[in-house]
Amino acid sequence: MHFAGQHILSVNQFERADIETIFAVADQMLPYARRKRVTRVLEGAVLGNMFFEPSTRTRVSFGSAFNLLGGEVRETTGFEDSAIAKGESLYDTARVISGYSDVIAMRHPEPGSVAEFASASRVPVLNGGDGANEHPTQALLDLYTIKSEMHGRGGDIDGLRIALIGDLRYGRTVHSLCKLLCLFQGLEVHLISPPELRMPGDIVETMRSADHKVTETEDLEDHIAHVDIAYSTRIQEERFGSREEADLYRGRFRLNQNIYTQHCEPNTVIMHPLPRDSREGARELDDDLNDNPNLAIFRQTDNGVVVRMALFALVLDVVEQVDRDARDVNWYTGSRFQ
Amino acid sequence: MHFAGQHILSVNQFERADIETIFAVADQMLPYARRKRVTRVLEGAVLGNMFFEPSTRTRVSFGSAFNLLGGEVRETTGFEDSAIAKGESLYDTARVISGYSDVIAMRHPEPGSVAEFASASRVPVLNGGDGANEHPTQALLDLYTIKSEMHGRGGDIDGLRIALIGDLRYGRTVHSLCKLLCLFQGLEVHLISPPELRMPGDIVETMRSADHKVTETEDLEDHIAHVDIAYSTRIQEERFGSREEADLYRGRFRLNQNIYTQHCEPNTVIMHPLPRDSREGARELDDDLNDNPNLAIFRQTDNGVVVRMALFALVLDVVEQVDRDARDVNWYTGSRFQ
Amino acid sequence: MHFAGQHILSVNQFERADIETIFAVADQMLPYARRKRVTRVLEGAVLGNMFFEPSTRTRVSFGSAFNLLGGEVRETTGFEDSAIAKGESLYDTARVISGYSDVIAMRHPEPGSVAEFASASRVPVLNGGDGANEHPTQALLDLYTIKSEMHGRGGDIDGLRIALIGDLRYGRTVHSLCKLLCLFQGLEVHLISPPELRMPGDIVETMRSADHKVTETEDLEDHIAHVDIAYSTRIQEERFGSREEADLYRGRFRLNQNIYTQHCEPNTVIMHPLPRDSREGARELDDDLNDNPNLAIFRQTDNGVVVRMALFALVLDVVEQVDRDARDVNWYTGSRFQ
Repeated sequence: MHFAGQHILSVNQFERADIETIFAVADQMLPYARRKRVTRVLEGAVLGNMFFEPSTRTRVSFGSAFNLLGGEVRETTGFEDSAIAKGESLYDTARVISGYSDVIAMRHPEPGSVAEFASASRVPVLNGGDGANEHPTQALLDLYTIKSEMHGRGGDIDGLRIALIGDLRYGRTVHSLCKLLCLFQGLEVHLISPPELRMPGDIVETMRSADHKVTETEDLEDHIAHVDIAYSTRIQEERFGSREEADLYRGRFRLNQNIYTQHCEPNTVIMHPLPRDSREGARELDDDLNDNPNLAIFRQTDNGVVVRMALFALVLDVVEQVDRDARDVNWYTGSRFQ
Repeated sequence: MHFAGQHILSVNQFERADIETIFAVADQMLPYARRKRVTRVLEGAVLGNMFFEPSTRTRVSFGSAFNLLGGEVRETTGFEDSAIAKGESLYDTARVISGYSDVIAMRHPEPGSVAEFASASRVPVLNGGDGANEHPTQALLDLYTIKSEMHGRGGDIDGLRIALIGDLRYGRTVHSLCKLLCLFQGLEVHLISPPELRMPGDIVETMRSADHKVTETEDLEDHIAHVDIAYSTRIQEERFGSREEADLYRGRFRLNQNIYTQHCEPNTVIMHPLPRDSREGARELDDDLNDNPNLAIFRQTDNGVVVRMALFALVLDVVEQVDRDARDVNWYTGSRFQ
Repeated sequence: MHFAGQHILSVNQFERADIETIFAVADQMLPYARRKRVTRVLEGAVLGNMFFEPSTRTRVSFGSAFNLLGGEVRETTGFEDSAIAKGESLYDTARVISGYSDVIAMRHPEPGSVAEFASASRVPVLNGGDGANEHPTQALLDLYTIKSEMHGRGGDIDGLRIALIGDLRYGRTVHSLCKLLCLFQGLEVHLISPPELRMPGDIVETMRSADHKVTETEDLEDHIAHVDIAYSTRIQEERFGSREEADLYRGRFRLNQNIYTQHCEPNTVIMHPLPRDSREGARELDDDLNDNPNLAIFRQTDNGVVVRMALFALVLDVVEQVDRDARDVNWYTGSRFQ
């Protein structure tokens, strides 16, 4: 696809070549995101960071990504306004806000709302999550993390062995990631969940149609034994009848350093879309893994900035200009990036 | 008036020459607001965007306007703080916040609060709406839109024929606009409303004293037949005893494509202060007008940025410097502005 | 101490030489904070302004300080997010957010939370207040104000005569200030409070160990008679059994122009950490003092920007670069700073 001026609404809009384009631009963004270099390519541009549902993490990630390209951010957090309560349509909101901005990142609780908004917007819209529907930048940052972790281990996405663990039924994150994985070849996918929380059948079918080897199981320990990536997810207790019922599942799909050492191959990468639940009784990914160098969860969020910078640069068509007039960072940065 | 360092609190502070100054500067801002050119004239300056009452639209418009001049925005949305709950006076708040900012845009639910705040502020304050009292930048953007729409049709504000439709009693927007119209000559003003929602008598009298021909009526169809501008407003159902009672009025003052085609002269401009109520049963301005090129409602909000840029440039006294060192926009902009 | 890359969490981490370093850098910041000069030394850097508890004043002060150095600000106000509700640890929040930012200013209602956050952060963290525990930038701005007020009167912090008035038991502000005063020599400290609201004994002892002359009293009028600084604080009625009970104390420790004229030496400086309670029945610092040139309360908040700029410049190690490429302010500034 030609990115300039396009909306980024769904993982379904990408072909493999698009993913490769995004990741190549993301690589180009690394020196800026890692505070080696400063670019001002979008100086004067305004991001409308429209979060009609709160999400500090995603909102700040979009905002920082835009700032790191030199642009300014105007934003909203939650339905602060009464305009929608007074009956304003998404069409009107989009027409108005897109006059204030050069590009919009939007989160909204209603599935489909971001696409509806985008159809009326006069500037490119990036979907920052529309309810249970889509969260394409999360899927992209997950896949980019997989690629870069595998690259560090001499591997690639093609041929990847991955375990997806936990609540595979309700997590839009794993759904979107699976769709993206279908653009690649020869994967071995272990879907580890309680029967009640299995991956929706259509997604399993799509992966099988892509010639991936897909196994559905309840057995954590056997199925994390020979994978490159163990991707854990939070058990979403709000979906269960009671906390006690949810606790049954949590106990069985907990990953900690002991289980890791006993069952996983060395250097198995651990991922999680975050937030992870660190409360007693939850801990699907135990804090005792924090010093494990294969814990990639904070490299994932770091990569979120990189991927969002790449998308902004692409839809605003400044990729060729990013490195022009860039300079070295002149303040203290320490050695924060692993 | 001399603008440098002045507060912008009320439409009453302007003479015709002031309006002409503001609009001339607004014209100068168009290439920046329309993303043809970038200026950094206010690089290093800070806007205190103090919205003690939420209003996404107005808040983001002020903020974007300041960003488009190169400045930074610090802001607040709602009474987040307990300082006022702890008994802090507006005087103290103003003294403190004006030490953090170079200029302040402020909205507050209490009539008169912005003027009180301004009297203690050490920097210029722009009124972004103080309850039912004043919202001068809205009136200015409306008038600027009228001027630019008329200009495109070979006309001007002098001699304008305008219909104001709907709730003329409670809408501060139409009140302020009428006051500004008194600075111009030879207007024909049709005030179309239910008897219960008529324009306050003193405003009608002021317009008549300005030698405008003012008609008050309940007849929509006859009175939109020979006007240049049909300015619709939302029926504010919260003022009525019941939704059903309010619905009586809404039905009669609805403008849609069919009524427009049947009754209006070609090219009659349609305006509305927004938000419009697009819910079934309301629709004072029907969505079927969205493709009508004479629907100016989003040009109004676009002009809001332009007018606010002009006010910032005037009160901070940088009008002469705006175009210096300006450069062309270097990112994708498409053809968003009509 | 060596500031580059350090967290600023507590007044206890400073020695006298550190305070002198901070104040020397603060002096260097004055032309920028007072809008004589513009510097862009932190252009491209991002402040994560993480206010998990609302505080408009402190939040905007940190943000403006960073903007005045040329940097960008991403921020959060309150627990908008459900991440923590979903069981996310401060460790995780810190790892994530520190990947988005070059430096973080943080406020949080829980004592100790900011230090816990800092221990996981990959970038320097400035404590913007952690509940009843610490608020080091407030103590620093108070001390910097004392120094600069005394300097204008030919004095210094050494040998200072100061009265602290009001609720000395619960106010973290006066506690932190007293700790800093222990780094200086030969002070005379009058602690004026009701018996129930006396300064905690350990702080009194620490001051006496530093060879300061400390008097505890309930007598306002005698003890403000021969001091350089009268530092008033709000009676925190929320700590009392009833508003009526609190009113008893308020009446006795009220400072107004009449009391000032009758009892204080000319040019006695009046300070207050703000907000002051201007409601009838409170008024520990009466509004009739607003035109008294010795009322330093808004110079305190102005100095808050200066001190925070200094801390940012120090922890990001750009002090030597601030004045390089600086330029004069090019917009209207009036004569706002006293």
